[in-house]
Amino acid sequence: MAEKKLMLEIAPTTAKPSVKVTVVGTGQVGMAVAYSLMLKNVASEIAMVDINEDRLKGELMDLQHGQSFVPDVTITGSTDYAITKDSAICVVTAGARQHEGQTRIDLVQKNVSIFKNIIPNLVKYSPKAILLIVSNPVDVLTWVAWKLSALPRNRIFGSGTMLDSSRLRFLLSQRFGVSPSCCHAYVIGEHGDSSVPVWSAVAIAGTRLRQVSPKCGLEGDPDNWDQLHRDVVNSAYEVVQMKGHTNWATGMMVSKLCGCILRNEHRPFCLTTNVKGLYDMTESTFMSVPCIVGENGISHVLLQALDETEKAKLIASAKLLLCVQKTVVL
Amino acid sequence: MAEKKLMLEIAPTTAKPSVKVTVVGTGQVGMAVAYSLMLKNVASEIAMVDINEDRLKGELMDLQHGQSFVPDVTITGSTDYAITKDSAICVVTAGARQHEGQTRIDLVQKNVSIFKNIIPNLVKYSPKAILLIVSNPVDVLTWVAWKLSALPRNRIFGSGTMLDSSRLRFLLSQRFGVSPSCCHAYVIGEHGDSSVPVWSAVAIAGTRLRQVSPKCGLEGDPDNWDQLHRDVVNSAYEVVQMKGHTNWATGMMVSKLCGCILRNEHRPFCLTTNVKGLYDMTESTFMSVPCIVGENGISHVLLQALDETEKAKLIASAKLLLCVQKTVVL
Amino acid sequence: MAEKKLMLEIAPTTAKPSVKVTVVGTGQVGMAVAYSLMLKNVASEIAMVDINEDRLKGELMDLQHGQSFVPDVTITGSTDYAITKDSAICVVTAGARQHEGQTRIDLVQKNVSIFKNIIPNLVKYSPKAILLIVSNPVDVLTWVAWKLSALPRNRIFGSGTMLDSSRLRFLLSQRFGVSPSCCHAYVIGEHGDSSVPVWSAVAIAGTRLRQVSPKCGLEGDPDNWDQLHRDVVNSAYEVVQMKGHTNWATGMMVSKLCGCILRNEHRPFCLTTNVKGLYDMTESTFMSVPCIVGENGISHVLLQALDETEKAKLIASAKLLLCVQKTVVL
Amino acid sequence: MAEKKLMLEIAPTTAKPSVKVTVVGTGQVGMAVAYSLMLKNVASEIAMVDINEDRLKGELMDLQHGQSFVPDVTITGSTDYAITKDSAICVVTAGARQHEGQTRIDLVQKNVSIFKNIIPNLVKYSPKAILLIVSNPVDVLTWVAWKLSALPRNRIFGSGTMLDSSRLRFLLSQRFGVSPSCCHAYVIGEHGDSSVPVWSAVAIAGTRLRQVSPKCGLEGDPDNWDQLHRDVVNSAYEVVQMKGHTNWATGMMVSKLCGCILRNEHRPFCLTTNVKGLYDMTESTFMSVPCIVGENGISHVLLQALDETEKAKLIASAKLLLCVQKTVVL
Repeated sequence: MAEKKLMLEIAPTTAKPSVKVTVVGTGQVGMAVAYSLMLKNVASEIAMVDINEDRLKGELMDLQHGQSFVPDVTITGSTDYAITKDSAICVVTAGARQHEGQTRIDLVQKNVSIFKNIIPNLVKYSPKAILLIVSNPVDVLTWVAWKLSALPRNRIFGSGTMLDSSRLRFLLSQRFGVSPSCCHAYVIGEHGDSSVPVWSAVAIAGTRLRQVSPKCGLEGDPDNWDQLHRDVVNSAYEVVQMKGHTNWATGMMVSKLCGCILRNEHRPFCLTTNVKGLYDMTESTFMSVPCIVGENGISHVLLQALDETEKAKLIASAKLLLCVQKTVVL
Repeated sequence: MAEKKLMLEIAPTTAKPSVKVTVVGTGQVGMAVAYSLMLKNVASEIAMVDINEDRLKGELMDLQHGQSFVPDVTITGSTDYAITKDSAICVVTAGARQHEGQTRIDLVQKNVSIFKNIIPNLVKYSPKAILLIVSNPVDVLTWVAWKLSALPRNRIFGSGTMLDSSRLRFLLSQRFGVSPSCCHAYVIGEHGDSSVPVWSAVAIAGTRLRQVSPKCGLEGDPDNWDQLHRDVVNSAYEVVQMKGHTNWATGMMVSKLCGCILRNEHRPFCLTTNVKGLYDMTESTFMSVPCIVGENGISHVLLQALDETEKAKLIASAKLLLCVQKTVVL
Repeated sequence: MAEKKLMLEIAPTTAKPSVKVTVVGTGQVGMAVAYSLMLKNVASEIAMVDINEDRLKGELMDLQHGQSFVPDVTITGSTDYAITKDSAICVVTAGARQHEGQTRIDLVQKNVSIFKNIIPNLVKYSPKAILLIVSNPVDVLTWVAWKLSALPRNRIFGSGTMLDSSRLRFLLSQRFGVSPSCCHAYVIGEHGDSSVPVWSAVAIAGTRLRQVSPKCGLEGDPDNWDQLHRDVVNSAYEVVQMKGHTNWATGMMVSKLCGCILRNEHRPFCLTTNVKGLYDMTESTFMSVPCIVGENGISHVLLQALDETEKAKLIASAKLLLCVQKTVVL
Repeated sequence: MAEKKLMLEIAPTTAKPSVKVTVVGTGQVGMAVAYSLMLKNVASEIAMVDINEDRLKGELMDLQHGQSFVPDVTITGSTDYAITKDSAICVVTAGARQHEGQTRIDLVQKNVSIFKNIIPNLVKYSPKAILLIVSNPVDVLTWVAWKLSALPRNRIFGSGTMLDSSRLRFLLSQRFGVSPSCCHAYVIGEHGDSSVPVWSAVAIAGTRLRQVSPKCGLEGDPDNWDQLHRDVVNSAYEVVQMKGHTNWATGMMVSKLCGCILRNEHRPFCLTTNVKGLYDMTESTFMSVPCIVGENGISHVLLQALDETEKAKLIASAKLLLCVQKTVVL
């Protein structure tokens, strides 16, 4: 054996993976997530799971063939969840897409049955992991995953309106000609049509937008800032119409969030979590509010000082989501 | 205008892009390239060109929506090559794929006509750029691009067997349980079936493989190392069969190479270039040999001490490629 | 020659450096800057200049000995400014330190004579460069450098209160248990005792501090937030007392700022620039206000909506600085 | 409390640090290590220990003041080892420097007594950590630390000739005009005057140097390659003479090595370990040979095929080191 002639073993190559992230699903989103994790050097091991063995193997090989061009990372994959053992984070991107003629409620119910297989398997092999739900409709599916996992709410949450917020930041950055990183904006509530832009908190490079445009986001706003939010809501549809799906922004979002968790960064992101108790909401509804995230998952929810319009919209969004939650048979 | 109330202009925001990379083509490969460039923070501006305006716009929006999660970069795109002005590097991934019943020569000819539009436009808007050809069959198309561009050969080359070499490194890394970055292996010649693994130079963490396995790559090798090269050749087909295309490894390869150029790193990569004069080859054939790459493109070709078997295989590979070149009508 | 047997030259290894940064001064600050630039992979070439040839050579060798552990970068240095040719950015850290018994005005005048050698040499070899002044007292020396260079004000500025702002952000991050990156705070005016914290704009993860602590920074503030600003002012003295100098934070600051310039990021930083015309100030005084920075240097000054206390303090700070400026003999 | 009004606690901010690195010693080397770890984003927490409380506090504050310019990391420090709890890696840079008139053996003995305090404290608070010894003379002090710690040899090793190898790579890179990353060279044996360059294995971009310069490193070498090794040995003295100490290259080396461990990269580095059993050496001598490193520390020692000259020099180096080891009173 050439290996034995070359190297003398001193100890096993590894005990337990130091930083392992699992990605469930190798569709467009799952692969953008895995690729992004790989390029951003977020983990020392990435494990992938999919029920389609051929596609899984093809995607794994394609990633592995580029390993010599990026920082070292171990890429593994299987149809068997044993491969996910001892993950620090599990990202769930799997799920059915909406077909023509299918109601949204049918779609949710179908994904519930898929989650009944995924979630308990992840918890079984990585009982200390943080679970991040990306599959859509993300709000109700995060609630489903929470129910199925019995994990404390700091360790199971959904990507929610983190992407909607990023879209709004990009549009603001274009308008002002500055970096998206200094356009502070939060979109909260449902990841979808009823999402709520928090115009009262939007700030550009440290100055609140309402200081230069006082009616921003309110009725009678001469600058019509709310059009940017409508563009955010429409842009998901537009991208799907033009390229068939969305994936890249989601990939970047997830690797950013995983890095933030693993580096214990305590930054705020709009994530789907249980909002019971916030803004006088009395039911366990899952939707997005800004959360501080670190290696223990969500440590805090930010108590934003919403104005009356924003609060009313948020409560309306919660009602919509609760209706969907109530239709789900677990 | 809110912008005017917020900011006082001192000077235009930019004069000339400091580090701009153009990607031609928004197919699977082009997008993996763009995404990789974006995540690895290789450029300050990425310009994309495609003839399919809808897909282009969809892909651009998807990338832009993630900008707040990665280091700042400007993402632009158009069907008009004016958008590529003043690029430091132009990466060409566009081209037709082989259809059933189509001969390989028909495919080349089709891509020649596509290149007749692309190459002069790139040179027109960025006369000082380096052109990197990724489209397949990469060897002959790099020759075509060289002819069409009239650029000196240090500034136009193809990704060639850089990917084949990376695949071989990965397989060696798996066999030895070490990082691909310390498995040194070069595959040269055609990017395709007649590629040549340089077993005489393979080294693992500083030790030549032939020191521990003397017949490695030669006839009668009891360890059958050449199977790894056959696996490399087959793996491209396997990945295509299993997932429909290859893209991720190519994306990582191109961002690595662009980074190496822009940082003037002078590292060796197997790239498609004119091999006339090497190993007694007398014709301007384009195929891969190890090249040193920096901000002036290819500064040197490495003169590897090939053994007789390797040299014979390389010359055979060159003959095959020259035959294809000769069929091309420019 | 082994080199010739190994490599065939195709083209010169480089034409013109793609991204070159010069650091003037190899004291504690200059070296922290160079080390930070090297580790953060900001430039493809770092050129160092110092009048002390021995120390310069020792520091260069020490950096070069670590090159194989970090991304590639060329490290050069000389006592001759010819080495700085074609820099994109020149960072000036050189200058005398205050000696006992020496007045501050004597110190400024001594550094003016040092700058009379440095600044014209930098402009001579890199007429298109951006000049960043880090030497102290930074405000008046930036004004001096502006006078000596005759550069437009977008291309010459000082690091100013960027560091004071970072210190305040850190203290806020400790108080709230969140990342400094989501503690938004600006300290403006003099880099020194008369600096002005803009409490009216402080925001934590999107919420203005005054929403939860309305008298923050004002008289009678029960939470005594202004103590944090006094800690910022004192901390420079404390660090010098405890370790003899400050350098690390400055190194990180400069590499961040250079990266922002070279990537054309358009982010806001508090930098020393000419404030004539702002807040009814009528003289060409150099001190810090938030500026948007990209590859053309300062493109915009942010027009912060200061409250009356803040505005009064800023104007007082400007008066102090103008007095110093007026003592300088150019 | 402003904090409570802003944020609602969901869970404690952290359970156990995910990736914590301890640095013992805040001298020039310790600080270059800490700064490098911070800039390269290697850990989520860096803990520093020093007996000089003032200097420690000054250095900590200086690092903390720059936190807003780099990726998030928690910086802590104390004179009490409790701060190091649950580290993944502990880096020891502390130790006395040689004074005039002091024999080397006196120096070793003085550092032994310092290590008697450091090593048991590190093992007490982080029993699963990897210990990396950087203090000089590194070879004998690694043996001392091994004895004091009772750790298995995969989890305690010294930085050894990793730096000498890097210096040789840099000099080769200058000679060939290529990146240090493609100049493969190993210096083994003592970190010091008796170190051994393995000329038989030196390769430039995949070609062994002996293929183009057959007598390289041997007697009668017309190209006098061994001068480069003499330059390596001298360069440590030269740098100390010119700037008073060496630190930057060591900082880069340690952050590279820590990154390699924490990402489980399995790369080869020349590290000080027990060489008993290698090349017919029969005693537990600590000196450098190439080792494969991952998250379990040293998993393998590489069995290089040394030529006779190299083997003889290595055994001579071992004898010297064993003499020193034998003088030590534990």
